[in-house]
Amino acid sequence: MKRGKLIVVSAPSGCGKGTILSEILKNPKYYYSVSATTRQPRKGEKDGVHYRFLQKETFENLIQEDAFLEYASYCDNYYGTLLAPIEEHLSAGDNVILEIEVKGAEQIRKKRPDATLIFIQPPSIEVLRQRLEKRGTETQEVIDKRIAQAEEEMTHWNEYDYCIVNDVLSEAVEDFKAVARAVELKVNQE
Amino acid sequence: MKRGKLIVVSAPSGCGKGTILSEILKNPKYYYSVSATTRQPRKGEKDGVHYRFLQKETFENLIQEDAFLEYASYCDNYYGTLLAPIEEHLSAGDNVILEIEVKGAEQIRKKRPDATLIFIQPPSIEVLRQRLEKRGTETQEVIDKRIAQAEEEMTHWNEYDYCIVNDVLSEAVEDFKAVARAVELKVNQE
Repeated sequence: MKRGKLIVVSAPSGCGKGTILSEILKNPKYYYSVSATTRQPRKGEKDGVHYRFLQKETFENLIQEDAFLEYASYCDNYYGTLLAPIEEHLSAGDNVILEIEVKGAEQIRKKRPDATLIFIQPPSIEVLRQRLEKRGTETQEVIDKRIAQAEEEMTHWNEYDYCIVNDVLSEAVEDFKAVARAVELKVNQE
Repeated sequence: MKRGKLIVVSAPSGCGKGTILSEILKNPKYYYSVSATTRQPRKGEKDGVHYRFLQKETFENLIQEDAFLEYASYCDNYYGTLLAPIEEHLSAGDNVILEIEVKGAEQIRKKRPDATLIFIQPPSIEVLRQRLEKRGTETQEVIDKRIAQAEEEMTHWNEYDYCIVNDVLSEAVEDFKAVARAVELKVNQE
């Protein structure tokens, strides 16, 4: 069995990353790695689908056991990526997609030279702002905060292996598929 | 203007490389780099299409001027890749495809870290033999020689960035397109 590939994806909020990934994940060769967290499930969130919801003690024991590929804590809650399910799926030949923010991606780059890192960008900050405003689900203050965060995140694009600009969604999906396909053809070189 | 990418392709004879490339070259974004040679044109060969046919003296002057990306001599004839047309097309944003044997590819890897090297393989030596025999254009002796050469060349597959197995032609063409597309999305890292 040919080992699958580990694909790490980062994108500022509002880039259409979710839509792109849902297209990619229609292919059963891809497995989406679900993050673990100690925060409380929100309404509608399912364990094992949106997150693996863990008790704080369990999470801390797993940290001690070095069970995480990466983890971080935000607002008194832990968030992390468990290594075991990823390894299982890679061994089974699945390509594993890991969605993670810039700092987590940096941790993974160091630990896993076998990982392929993809950054998804909006065509411009202006377009991102228009998209967020068009959605109409956030206040202007939240939008401004997201834009500022996106601007910061976008300075890290060149730490990734591939950068996809999501201008036309169908093209961005094709870009992602091309990268995923190419990654499978990649010769591992030291 | 975004610079194009330099794509180097090697494949043992009989791998279907020509068929794959003719599919890729239907896209005008790709420019096929024509080799220069001092050998005599064969019947039907056109200057600038199959080769750039040069006088020996001209070729040697160009060597002195460092005008070649790589060159070699076989059977008293020179064969080489002129740098200028490649640079012109890369600057114009075209992706340049360079078809070359294993040793030439090795020279280019050293000189051009920006190049992407693709190796095309047959599914197996047995399949390659069957394909060559089915063609019926070569004697058994020539086939045996080609098989031996292919076996030697195939030991170098892991010196390339990507390896495409040409089992089903349409899949191999899609593989090539995916690699070419992915290469355009690649972030240049030192």
